[in-house]
Amino acid sequence: MKPQLQPPLIIINFKTYLEATGKRAVELAKQAEKISKETSTSIVVAPQFVDIKAVAEAVEIPVFAQHLDPIKPGSYTGHVLVDSIKQAGAVGTLINHSERQLKLTDIDAIIKIAKEHDLISCVCTSKPSISAAVAYLNPDIISIEPPELIGTGVAVSMEQPEAVTNTLKLVRKVNNEAVILCGAGISHGEDVKVSLKLGAQGVLVASAIVKSNDSYTIIREFAYATKTH
Amino acid sequence: MKPQLQPPLIIINFKTYLEATGKRAVELAKQAEKISKETSTSIVVAPQFVDIKAVAEAVEIPVFAQHLDPIKPGSYTGHVLVDSIKQAGAVGTLINHSERQLKLTDIDAIIKIAKEHDLISCVCTSKPSISAAVAYLNPDIISIEPPELIGTGVAVSMEQPEAVTNTLKLVRKVNNEAVILCGAGISHGEDVKVSLKLGAQGVLVASAIVKSNDSYTIIREFAYATKTH
Amino acid sequence: MKPQLQPPLIIINFKTYLEATGKRAVELAKQAEKISKETSTSIVVAPQFVDIKAVAEAVEIPVFAQHLDPIKPGSYTGHVLVDSIKQAGAVGTLINHSERQLKLTDIDAIIKIAKEHDLISCVCTSKPSISAAVAYLNPDIISIEPPELIGTGVAVSMEQPEAVTNTLKLVRKVNNEAVILCGAGISHGEDVKVSLKLGAQGVLVASAIVKSNDSYTIIREFAYATKTH
Amino acid sequence: MKPQLQPPLIIINFKTYLEATGKRAVELAKQAEKISKETSTSIVVAPQFVDIKAVAEAVEIPVFAQHLDPIKPGSYTGHVLVDSIKQAGAVGTLINHSERQLKLTDIDAIIKIAKEHDLISCVCTSKPSISAAVAYLNPDIISIEPPELIGTGVAVSMEQPEAVTNTLKLVRKVNNEAVILCGAGISHGEDVKVSLKLGAQGVLVASAIVKSNDSYTIIREFAYATKTH
Repeated sequence: MKPQLQPPLIIINFKTYLEATGKRAVELAKQAEKISKETSTSIVVAPQFVDIKAVAEAVEIPVFAQHLDPIKPGSYTGHVLVDSIKQAGAVGTLINHSERQLKLTDIDAIIKIAKEHDLISCVCTSKPSISAAVAYLNPDIISIEPPELIGTGVAVSMEQPEAVTNTLKLVRKVNNEAVILCGAGISHGEDVKVSLKLGAQGVLVASAIVKSNDSYTIIREFAYATKTH
Repeated sequence: MKPQLQPPLIIINFKTYLEATGKRAVELAKQAEKISKETSTSIVVAPQFVDIKAVAEAVEIPVFAQHLDPIKPGSYTGHVLVDSIKQAGAVGTLINHSERQLKLTDIDAIIKIAKEHDLISCVCTSKPSISAAVAYLNPDIISIEPPELIGTGVAVSMEQPEAVTNTLKLVRKVNNEAVILCGAGISHGEDVKVSLKLGAQGVLVASAIVKSNDSYTIIREFAYATKTH
Repeated sequence: MKPQLQPPLIIINFKTYLEATGKRAVELAKQAEKISKETSTSIVVAPQFVDIKAVAEAVEIPVFAQHLDPIKPGSYTGHVLVDSIKQAGAVGTLINHSERQLKLTDIDAIIKIAKEHDLISCVCTSKPSISAAVAYLNPDIISIEPPELIGTGVAVSMEQPEAVTNTLKLVRKVNNEAVILCGAGISHGEDVKVSLKLGAQGVLVASAIVKSNDSYTIIREFAYATKTH
Repeated sequence: MKPQLQPPLIIINFKTYLEATGKRAVELAKQAEKISKETSTSIVVAPQFVDIKAVAEAVEIPVFAQHLDPIKPGSYTGHVLVDSIKQAGAVGTLINHSERQLKLTDIDAIIKIAKEHDLISCVCTSKPSISAAVAYLNPDIISIEPPELIGTGVAVSMEQPEAVTNTLKLVRKVNNEAVILCGAGISHGEDVKVSLKLGAQGVLVASAIVKSNDSYTIIREFAYATKTH
């Protein structure tokens, strides 16, 4: 059965940062788990493929893959099979991150593969109209991330609040179930609060946490921010 | 320091077969290790990304990734970073498998990344002229695999021996160091023997072993075939 | 100003068939034009990039490109710039044909580029949910083509009528303006009639016309079929 | 029969610049033709796909495509068929430009397609080792263009002369016939002279000519520079 995630939700994308590779991926995931338990906040970690198993064995919080290929078992050397990430302990996957964009038919195919394997699907989108398009494909989570803000430290919730509110407006016309997150530039607890005030049900974050000298403090700041908005 | 592989060499590509995913990847690697030790044969296993760590922790034979992305640490969600596979225990990687073909500049970049990280690079090619082209990029291993024979059970060494001999002839004009393997359709010990007689220094195999009901017997047959040619 | 196309509509995709390359592209377009005038039917031709200008100069019926790249003028060697096809006389373009599938963000970008240049955008989709997703991006035309039927001679309207009716149902929830076509396997006038009865506003066809020994007769059959449904 | 080009050679890549689109592509090609005749210099123009026919009809100097797809006639909507560019009057094609990079097997396939159709193949490479790799695939022309210098106005011949000389050294070990050009940042007659002194047999240029307010003067300067080195 597919696991349930209780919003508000914080997804930490480890990307391919050295600070979140190998043992350091496990350490970061443990910090996230500790804060998740202390603050009763839903925190998801998305490590690199190679690190999924070690991370999933080390923590009890949900682990997502960063990508999945639209393939069945067979002759697909160098691709990512749903069964491999599921057996390693992943309970969901990012899809179509702006750094790993996909063809429309592949997004659709991967959402279906995830559903068939009881994995949570989180599709990333770059703007409200694309969020609405994706809403029709019924992913579990839609995360709006204007690519021009990713990694800038300038938060989508501050700089482009209408990207969030328009995503909500358009998506809700056709889809009442998808959890809607926002991301790109989220750096402070205040960014998280504003995101939730705008109507987002959580955030997708990466560099602000992974590249921080004190990621524990930042994660905790984000977690508390989800409590007090 | 880069590990040394002593030809003749058998590389087993796990592809994305269910029979070689998760726990079954570890089991298959253990069979390969057992035969490797019993017969003093160089056997390499190439599991899926997600399974590299568990396989590398379970066996002492060399573990290769099936692919690597030409990236540095950073913002590359869903890509495969060299550090992640190395920290997980891989000592080499396949590059440009016919099921994961790459741009020419990316092949060059990945060979260099592998070299800088003391990883063994094994570039797959489809025909002799392409093998020769790749030889100039100085990978450690070149594996010629006519794609039309992959997965057919009709061995390259039997059906297209000139693909092997011409690869040897052309590559050796410019590169005396690269280990040259052949693959595609290798199914029986006899196919391995003929490959070595043609001058190849080993084989790259997948379905004949992975999809077999008795992979142990097949691997052993291959291993012995390298002894008696 | 963007030209208006009056449904029912027949779009003939020349693909990269030799029978519709160079002078033969012009000849085929002239046949289509003759029938268009004789029968007062909206017929569009979509030749290869290289043939757009000669075709557009030879006929008065609308000419579409088969694809467009999401680029601005500049350093994009080997890509297709909107200005080049427009200056050559194209009035629209196919987008995301199943033989030239695109990333979701590129589909969105190309629709916008087309709109800004007063070109008609026709996005091809493979199934109803994807048609609905695309509807949110506001193309002028959506053409549903189940890829498994393309080139088979087995018509979508006969074999998968629900692909057409469900596309209509889902798209019309959010978009009342897009012209909806169907394609794949359309081979006889009867296939066209049934398509229109199902609610489609026209058809997208290729091999049945281009590969025919008597394309004139087939086009005329299709044109008349749009009159009598 | 394949046309012969007499080095030294100047290839002008029109890219997708507005200054070299549609009628302006024809005008620029006519300038190049005029100078070619006045100075008896081999000048090739490479316009966008859509403009090939009009340019080839307007001038007698050789016309290249900027790219070609590795396909046969058939169902390849939105791709570039060799027959379409040949029938339109192209006598050659760029392959693997740094703005349109290709898989290694596709480079090989396109060179073969060009050969079978008596078209001149010009493969672009980014560095000496890649030039040498490509030399084994027997294209007619190899053009070395360090991508970091493209469009900068800083000429490869000045900034990275060893990219040119090492390309020559490596390529000539295995291939005595390919014409070797250099490109990237070539902006002045002096850059052309130095290129030829280094051993290159011509240049591949784009922005310095296409974006110039006085392209006629620049082309003529380049043409004369090939005479006096």
